[in-house]
Amino acid sequence: MKLVLKISGKFFDEESSENLIVLKDTIQRLINEGHKVAIVSGGGATARKYIKMGRELGVNEAHLDLLGIWASRLNAYLLTFILSGLTYMKVPENLEEFIEKWESGKVIVTGGFQPGQSTATVAALVSEAIGADYLILATNVDGVYDKDPRYYSDAKLIPKLDTETLKKVLENSQSVKAGTYELLDPLAIKIIERSKIKVIVMNYKKLDKILDIIRGKEIGSVIQPM
Amino acid sequence: MKLVLKISGKFFDEESSENLIVLKDTIQRLINEGHKVAIVSGGGATARKYIKMGRELGVNEAHLDLLGIWASRLNAYLLTFILSGLTYMKVPENLEEFIEKWESGKVIVTGGFQPGQSTATVAALVSEAIGADYLILATNVDGVYDKDPRYYSDAKLIPKLDTETLKKVLENSQSVKAGTYELLDPLAIKIIERSKIKVIVMNYKKLDKILDIIRGKEIGSVIQPM
Amino acid sequence: MKLVLKISGKFFDEESSENLIVLKDTIQRLINEGHKVAIVSGGGATARKYIKMGRELGVNEAHLDLLGIWASRLNAYLLTFILSGLTYMKVPENLEEFIEKWESGKVIVTGGFQPGQSTATVAALVSEAIGADYLILATNVDGVYDKDPRYYSDAKLIPKLDTETLKKVLENSQSVKAGTYELLDPLAIKIIERSKIKVIVMNYKKLDKILDIIRGKEIGSVIQPM
Amino acid sequence: MKLVLKISGKFFDEESSENLIVLKDTIQRLINEGHKVAIVSGGGATARKYIKMGRELGVNEAHLDLLGIWASRLNAYLLTFILSGLTYMKVPENLEEFIEKWESGKVIVTGGFQPGQSTATVAALVSEAIGADYLILATNVDGVYDKDPRYYSDAKLIPKLDTETLKKVLENSQSVKAGTYELLDPLAIKIIERSKIKVIVMNYKKLDKILDIIRGKEIGSVIQPM
Amino acid sequence: MKLVLKISGKFFDEESSENLIVLKDTIQRLINEGHKVAIVSGGGATARKYIKMGRELGVNEAHLDLLGIWASRLNAYLLTFILSGLTYMKVPENLEEFIEKWESGKVIVTGGFQPGQSTATVAALVSEAIGADYLILATNVDGVYDKDPRYYSDAKLIPKLDTETLKKVLENSQSVKAGTYELLDPLAIKIIERSKIKVIVMNYKKLDKILDIIRGKEIGSVIQPM
Amino acid sequence: MKLVLKISGKFFDEESSENLIVLKDTIQRLINEGHKVAIVSGGGATARKYIKMGRELGVNEAHLDLLGIWASRLNAYLLTFILSGLTYMKVPENLEEFIEKWESGKVIVTGGFQPGQSTATVAALVSEAIGADYLILATNVDGVYDKDPRYYSDAKLIPKLDTETLKKVLENSQSVKAGTYELLDPLAIKIIERSKIKVIVMNYKKLDKILDIIRGKEIGSVIQPM
Ligand SMILES: Nc1ncnc2c1ncn2[C@@H]1O[C@H](COP(=O)(O)OP(=O)(O)OP(=O)(O)O)[C@@H](O)[C@H]1O
Ligand SMILES: Nc1ncnc2c1ncn2[C@@H]1O[C@H](COP(=O)(O)OP(=O)(O)OP(=O)(O)O)[C@@H](O)[C@H]1O
Ligand SMILES: Nc1ncnc2c1ncn2[C@@H]1O[C@H](COP(=O)(O)OP(=O)(O)OP(=O)(O)O)[C@@H](O)[C@H]1O
Ligand SMILES: Nc1ncnc2c1ncn2[C@@H]1O[C@H](COP(=O)(O)OP(=O)(O)OP(=O)(O)O)[C@@H](O)[C@H]1O
Ligand SMILES: Nc1ncnc2c1ncn2[C@@H]1O[C@H](COP(=O)(O)OP(=O)(O)OP(=O)(O)O)[C@@H](O)[C@H]1O
Ligand SMILES: [Co+2]
Ligand SMILES: [Co+2]
Ligand SMILES: [Co+2]
Ligand SMILES: [Co+2]
Ligand SMILES: [Co+2]
Ligand SMILES: [Co+2]
Ligand SMILES: [Mg+2]
Ligand SMILES: [Mg+2]
Repeated sequence: MKLVLKISGKFFDEESSENLIVLKDTIQRLINEGHKVAIVSGGGATARKYIKMGRELGVNEAHLDLLGIWASRLNAYLLTFILSGLTYMKVPENLEEFIEKWESGKVIVTGGFQPGQSTATVAALVSEAIGADYLILATNVDGVYDKDPRYYSDAKLIPKLDTETLKKVLENSQSVKAGTYELLDPLAIKIIERSKIKVIVMNYKKLDKILDIIRGKEIGSVIQPM
Repeated sequence: MKLVLKISGKFFDEESSENLIVLKDTIQRLINEGHKVAIVSGGGATARKYIKMGRELGVNEAHLDLLGIWASRLNAYLLTFILSGLTYMKVPENLEEFIEKWESGKVIVTGGFQPGQSTATVAALVSEAIGADYLILATNVDGVYDKDPRYYSDAKLIPKLDTETLKKVLENSQSVKAGTYELLDPLAIKIIERSKIKVIVMNYKKLDKILDIIRGKEIGSVIQPM
Repeated sequence: MKLVLKISGKFFDEESSENLIVLKDTIQRLINEGHKVAIVSGGGATARKYIKMGRELGVNEAHLDLLGIWASRLNAYLLTFILSGLTYMKVPENLEEFIEKWESGKVIVTGGFQPGQSTATVAALVSEAIGADYLILATNVDGVYDKDPRYYSDAKLIPKLDTETLKKVLENSQSVKAGTYELLDPLAIKIIERSKIKVIVMNYKKLDKILDIIRGKEIGSVIQPM
Repeated sequence: MKLVLKISGKFFDEESSENLIVLKDTIQRLINEGHKVAIVSGGGATARKYIKMGRELGVNEAHLDLLGIWASRLNAYLLTFILSGLTYMKVPENLEEFIEKWESGKVIVTGGFQPGQSTATVAALVSEAIGADYLILATNVDGVYDKDPRYYSDAKLIPKLDTETLKKVLENSQSVKAGTYELLDPLAIKIIERSKIKVIVMNYKKLDKILDIIRGKEIGSVIQPM
Repeated sequence: MKLVLKISGKFFDEESSENLIVLKDTIQRLINEGHKVAIVSGGGATARKYIKMGRELGVNEAHLDLLGIWASRLNAYLLTFILSGLTYMKVPENLEEFIEKWESGKVIVTGGFQPGQSTATVAALVSEAIGADYLILATNVDGVYDKDPRYYSDAKLIPKLDTETLKKVLENSQSVKAGTYELLDPLAIKIIERSKIKVIVMNYKKLDKILDIIRGKEIGSVIQPM
Repeated sequence: MKLVLKISGKFFDEESSENLIVLKDTIQRLINEGHKVAIVSGGGATARKYIKMGRELGVNEAHLDLLGIWASRLNAYLLTFILSGLTYMKVPENLEEFIEKWESGKVIVTGGFQPGQSTATVAALVSEAIGADYLILATNVDGVYDKDPRYYSDAKLIPKLDTETLKKVLENSQSVKAGTYELLDPLAIKIIERSKIKVIVMNYKKLDKILDIIRGKEIGSVIQPM
């Protein structure tokens, strides 16, 4: 299978060797079993720290986004070096570069590509370009819930849904302002729909269960494109 | 002033020397008067021709978009060479490259940047990055109308509107399927709003009137970001 | 075998899915049989369209050639994406870049390299650099004729000839001005001669017969370097 | 004058707008007065954080250094964007790229260049390449002391010294293991000596006094190359 | 005026400081007087040395030419560094890169561009791209002679000629095999003719007289394109 | 095994086909036996020639070093082309580029990377980055001696030593000024020590015995990192 793995920026914020070891072992195992893998890193706290400093000094939105993108690339280099031997040893900086390097047969790790665009959109673009079987969003919750699980302890995980439902859930459940959903933004969803990409939302603590989650044997959400 | 000029792909389809001469003279005059200019070219018929051939052969959406992007870059090179002496002599292929070259002080011409993204979004990103005073959309109609002027001869031009109104007008007036407006798509509008970019919609036949249109003395639409 | 395939710009002008399917199947089959392939695309009508617009606006010869080169690269990207999976996913822009990428083991598709130079010369340079067994010129006629077949219905195909004869035939048969032959220009022939490259001229409608033509079993011309 | 300013990684760790404002104002003023400036950023806590994660996962020394280098480049981008308008908008990644971009006349900001090499060495290389009048090390102490001021409250600042003396002071005063001095390592000193570069060590809190420090009117150390 | 100066490889073989000082002073003076200058370096003995070693080991023609090209680039770097302050600090490796960098306003120095092509052709391509007023060939003889001056002491210098005459003279006078003239090869002459570039042939020992030679006041040959 | 082979600049100065043939055969054999190889070329007489010309014209130290680096890259291209088929066909210009290309699986040949740095340091950096089993210094003497063998005919080869001993031997035996040893400079030794790289010093005339020397069966010196 061809898999694109989007790793939440929160993963790096935990500064946890355990997290990194599970990720390393999982990728190693996927490669050994013959799968092809691309990884997209979020920016996390490092991104927020630099954006904050820039914003205080009056840096414009495009350049603030670039600070976040460079932070996500730093996360991407960390994974690149940890997985050294399996990975392509340079982090591509845009989709055309990614497409060129993908043919090397190595695991490619990227961060952000462009201002005005989430790393979830990067992951959707990458999935479309390589015809991925699954786009896997590894984040700090177990899947898509009917309400934001951060605020509602009674939120229920939805094991299977389609992108139409997802859009409704995200619009209703989220505290952030309209049109800027967490997890997956509208542009990412548009790409997922036009190229019929299957999406998994799962917890990055359970990366070792990734194939079981795809098969629906472990906790996570499977999203069908409409 | 800093101006970003988005030239519709339709401009190139007309294969009209007259069009090109007016554009050349306008840019020359703007530069002489001390303005700074960036230009973004659409893809037009050349883009559609190659996308059609690719689609018949089963090329995926990401790669089809890249064919359209390379066509828009060909249009961009035409303008680059016509304006030779004023222009930076390479067409940047992504926003980071644009940002780097902008500092040369030359007119920069670009085409598309990335699959899943219109050249209107490219123009919005470029406007945000350089802090443009105006983003000017030069197209084959005189401005924003209350209905699609292609189909309704009684459509009325709206000389001044805000982005909230624009979104409503575009959603109602357009024949294309929901969420994919012509002229300006949602991502372009989001960037325009977050960075408060003023937008002009005008006819590319009237490029020589560009400053009068900005001042509201000639026909065109001025869009205020919300 | 190592094969360099120069595809005439006319091939793309026909906008024919059939043409493209035959090309796709042929390359797939050659690769399956263990051959190594490079492809060079001509510019065709797209090149002429942009050169015409540029010339009307006073663009200089070097820049006009670059418009043609960018058009040929657009053709090259079309082939690159149609053959996606077999191909290197970026079109090299000069011989040094070609040489570097060739080692990837993928099919490399290029367009033009440099002003003042035909894509036939590009194909000869590429053939020399990789030590090609054959340089195949796939065009809209069946081979080299004793007179220009476009104008003389009694023109006779020459199945075997050497480069000395070729030069004479091209000089006599052609309507264009001295020293600028069609099919193969003097620089291309010089390279073919100095590196002893065998050349085939054939019809792109018969690409599926390519190996039979090489073996002399099907219609086409084989040119021996002197 | 041509000035190279090496900003300690510690400067960024303070996440202080005040620090950044002083730096911004200083550079603006230096440019207004006609000086030419290059800036080299250290890696600081961000570098140490990623190196620590990498080391726990068994990443090799060369790749760990690269994590630190990418962190220093993130610091460099922060300065690049804060000084936007004055700066070259890309962080060069090696000396040859720096040399090429320097001719743009803009302020160039770099981070690290290469594993096995401090950003102080980067600053020395940059100073040599452009023939800098002064290499200024802006750090968290007021200058070079006879003992490490971190541990000895009675350490005395040395206002003037030569590189021979500097080497002795650094070797004796420092807690770190032999041959790896803080502030300036042996390779940086070797370059400073072979190209006779004058060096200033000063506190980054006093960046606004930079010209007075050079003139010896304010607290700091001036180092004469031998 | 815009001037392209092609410096013979023989210039570097003399390893003469005097040669280099005259060149440096001449370029400095031309720039001071407001001219714009590009320089193309030949490969000379360094090229021949590496080509000889390569040929003995069976290296192919394309790669041998690349050895010569890299040698000419080494000569180009020597000039770039000697003229540091006036020059663009990287040697462009193809015409598109040259065209991009030319807009920097600096003196650009190049060596060879591509196998199968002399540095005289490089100089003609560069002249065409920038619309040079003169292409100046600085070599080890005083101009074009009616016979090869190396072998005939009674050879007479031709102060004015056109490209038609030049072709005849070169074909008759030269000892090298047909079609590969010294000084200017057929492709270079073709470019000179199509873009009507005026050419000067002069001795590099007299570079300080360059403007007088252009004005016909000093010994040299002026070639008119036909 | 992973082997890094540093070829002395003196190797190229001999302009000996025999040298080149032995090197070619050795690399071919190592690859056939399944080893992975990187090669670093010194600059030799070509470097010295260009540095001398530059120095006479007042070129600064950084730029002089770059002339030497470009000369070593010319040597590297010679090896690249001689070993064509086995090698990556571009000479990387810095460590990050080397690291990226190393994953291609080809033999990578480099010259120098950066001013202020010997090609021995380049070889040490490359060895560290790839985790080389051995760094092999192929030079014009048979190994490390107790005195400089150039001046003392009674100098004795030391078959086994550690880096501590090496430092002492080099400091005492060498005629060059303190701190700038031949063979291996302090920075190279520092890298060798921090990453525990085993080093062999051997004669390039005996490259065909390379594996025997590693096994201690042939004359050469083995250096153990401390
Ligand atoms: N309906 C929902 N289902 C699941 N999570 C939700 C929902 N609504 C809101 N969330 C929030 O979305 C968050 C995950 O999305 P978010 O974009 O913040 O992180 P990410 O994409 O994993 O990481 P990053 O954007 O930092 O790379 C969860 O922490 C959760 O609180
Ligand atoms: N309310 C409206 N006001 C103005 N034009 C409208 C409206 N609704 C639809 N249109 C159509 O939008 C078209 C312009 O947008 P479109 O995106 O097609 O072109 P463009 O952006 O100028 O060019 P391209 O996308 O080819 O670069 C007009 O031709 C018009 O028919
Ligand atoms: N003799 C000395 N004089 C001054 N500072 C000294 C001396 N000896 C040791 N130090 C220490 O050197 C430190 C500065 O050097 P250091 O290399 O750590 O920082 P930097 O180069 O400014 O930043 P970075 O390496 O993080 O970019 C000071 O904090 C001080 O404690
Ligand atoms: N009719 C002629 N007039 C002038 N020179 C001629 C003529 N015929 C042959 N030559 C030879 O041409 C030589 C110059 O051309 P050549 O191409 O060898 O050098 P170049 O172009 O200056 O340098 P390089 O090719 O090494 O960069 C002269 O040395 C001269 O002997
Ligand atoms: N103790 C020693 N043992 C061995 N060689 C020594 C010793 N001391 C000095 N040398 C000299 O070191 C030389 C090799 O080092 P050097 O750096 O000059 O060459 P290299 O590194 O092989 O080549 P290059 O630096 O030109 O790439 C020998 O020629 C030898 O004379
Ligand atoms: Co997110
Ligand atoms: Co549009
Ligand atoms: Co043709
Ligand atoms: Co430090
Ligand atoms: Co010549
Ligand atoms: Co050495
Ligand atoms: Mg786009
Ligand atoms: Mg560094």
